[in-house]
Amino acid sequence: MRLSLDAAHALALQALLASGVSAAQAAAIAGNVTAAERDGCPSHGLFRLPGYIRSVQNLKVTRDAVPQVTDLAPAVVQVDGNNGFAPLALEMGHSRLVGKARHCGIAAMAVTRIFHFGVLWVEVEQLAQEGLVAFAFTQSSSAVAPAGATKPLFGTNPMAFAWPRVGRPPLVFDQASSVTARGELLLKLRDGSSIPQGWAVDSSGAATTDAAAALAGAQLPFGGYKGSSIALMVELLAGALIGEAFGFEAAAADNNDGGPTLGGELIIAIDPAHFSPHGNSEAQLAHAELLFARILDLEGARLPSDRRYAARQRSAVDGIVIPGALQAELSAMASSGARAE
Amino acid sequence: MRLSLDAAHALALQALLASGVSAAQAAAIAGNVTAAERDGCPSHGLFRLPGYIRSVQNLKVTRDAVPQVTDLAPAVVQVDGNNGFAPLALEMGHSRLVGKARHCGIAAMAVTRIFHFGVLWVEVEQLAQEGLVAFAFTQSSSAVAPAGATKPLFGTNPMAFAWPRVGRPPLVFDQASSVTARGELLLKLRDGSSIPQGWAVDSSGAATTDAAAALAGAQLPFGGYKGSSIALMVELLAGALIGEAFGFEAAAADNNDGGPTLGGELIIAIDPAHFSPHGNSEAQLAHAELLFARILDLEGARLPSDRRYAARQRSAVDGIVIPGALQAELSAMASSGARAE
Repeated sequence: MRLSLDAAHALALQALLASGVSAAQAAAIAGNVTAAERDGCPSHGLFRLPGYIRSVQNLKVTRDAVPQVTDLAPAVVQVDGNNGFAPLALEMGHSRLVGKARHCGIAAMAVTRIFHFGVLWVEVEQLAQEGLVAFAFTQSSSAVAPAGATKPLFGTNPMAFAWPRVGRPPLVFDQASSVTARGELLLKLRDGSSIPQGWAVDSSGAATTDAAAALAGAQLPFGGYKGSSIALMVELLAGALIGEAFGFEAAAADNNDGGPTLGGELIIAIDPAHFSPHGNSEAQLAHAELLFARILDLEGARLPSDRRYAARQRSAVDGIVIPGALQAELSAMASSGARAE
Repeated sequence: MRLSLDAAHALALQALLASGVSAAQAAAIAGNVTAAERDGCPSHGLFRLPGYIRSVQNLKVTRDAVPQVTDLAPAVVQVDGNNGFAPLALEMGHSRLVGKARHCGIAAMAVTRIFHFGVLWVEVEQLAQEGLVAFAFTQSSSAVAPAGATKPLFGTNPMAFAWPRVGRPPLVFDQASSVTARGELLLKLRDGSSIPQGWAVDSSGAATTDAAAALAGAQLPFGGYKGSSIALMVELLAGALIGEAFGFEAAAADNNDGGPTLGGELIIAIDPAHFSPHGNSEAQLAHAELLFARILDLEGARLPSDRRYAARQRSAVDGIVIPGALQAELSAMASSGARAE
């Protein structure tokens, strides 16, 4: 089923609004899932909307939560999501974080009591579009075995990074600490296909290529103990540091409806102009372009975000393709108004 | 050859002083290499001293450099290493960085024009011992192929992270963006042993288990494209952001004496007390201990720094062991005064 980006956004928005999600929350979520579709990442696109909506219908997530922004320190801002979804909380903290980074040189935003179910690259890309270097870290429900173990403890715990570029979209990566994102496993399960060796173990700890067995077992960290260290770091930053739950705690508290779990996100933004003797970042950004050119000169190498930006160019013209069943499900939600009253 | 830690430190210090390194630079380096030996990491221990000393003898590194500390922004401090070694520059910026993190909640230190040849965990562990969460990033000479390519471009680009613990040494990891640290390849070469598959390719781009062929070829990033993204991030943070050279530029400018190359380091420190409603970090640190306990409950898992701390306890009692040839070489340097005049 082919849809224009505008149509995909409208479908997402209508499905959310009809389910009782507030206009502000719905607009922010629709933007996030449409961005995922636009950039060729269907595992975090419209596919996630039924999960978002179930979480509202069963009252796990507050449908009309209004996030609250609080200054914690000269270079720290907190956004309490008030039990709502992440995208609106991130939007509401954005300008305060940017202002602090521009003033102090580096700043952090602690986003708490949110349900994060989308891609991370959206938030760091927005910061880089304003000339800042940005990191984002968020934990997710327990799914990944620490290196050496075979039982899930860490979330898939993505970390994203963005570097601003002049006259081009930023360089961005957004990667799970597991070999693969959990959404990829869910897509494989939906499509009835097997998964590659090395992604996961089953509940007995044995290697598996079966998506259902993997989901019931444990995903593996990327790169062995080094990826496991990254997963641990993300758990500490988005959990203990900002006063939020760890993945295993969020999993225990969750209703297992397949939607997101309560958690937090840490964002760090750096203003490169404060690291330059010139008071602006021109020379630093120009210097980075030399590195990018050297990477692209190497046969076989690419820049982390190039595939996404290529997909973005294609989808602007051709729109996106979603399974007919998903389109039908969302259309039914959008028109029925499946509100939880 | 068995040495007490004090004897190892004295040997390092004497070899450096006799080579004309200033007392302040020598003391800081001796501390770093002794810490590496103490913690069971000989690849970054006394083994590195001949490289440090060659770099002074051939005038690549300024033997008596005095680092200069400059405030760049409310939350940013710069330390210009003035062409000296990293350890003294790091020491001199430490208290300013701590003060800024305590005031602003998060702060960064840009260390420029340094020769970094040691372990990173020392600097983040020190920050965590003062109750701060800390990251360190440094680039090194071009050695690692970006994912998909077979020619070296990135340095091995380590990233370190530390989390404070109450009544125990901090949780710390310090890991190269390559499958293995370059020092491990150098040790394998010295010992005439082969390297595991997957560490490196030779200069033709073919997989190799020969240490010499690997050193002449390219090391591989850990975890494929995800480790490659981390290597790229480190290159940008310790290079372009702070006005320093990339690994490939440092390699081109270097005299290839086997010593360190000129570069930079970025350190980020976070005060968890500023993220807490209580104004102190007690609850956050106690919460983290729950996660650590859960990890240790899993069969096969361990905490990243546990092996190092176990080695630290052993070496405090038993001292360390270094090859007789290395001990003889350093003793000769210490007594001969192989100064470059």
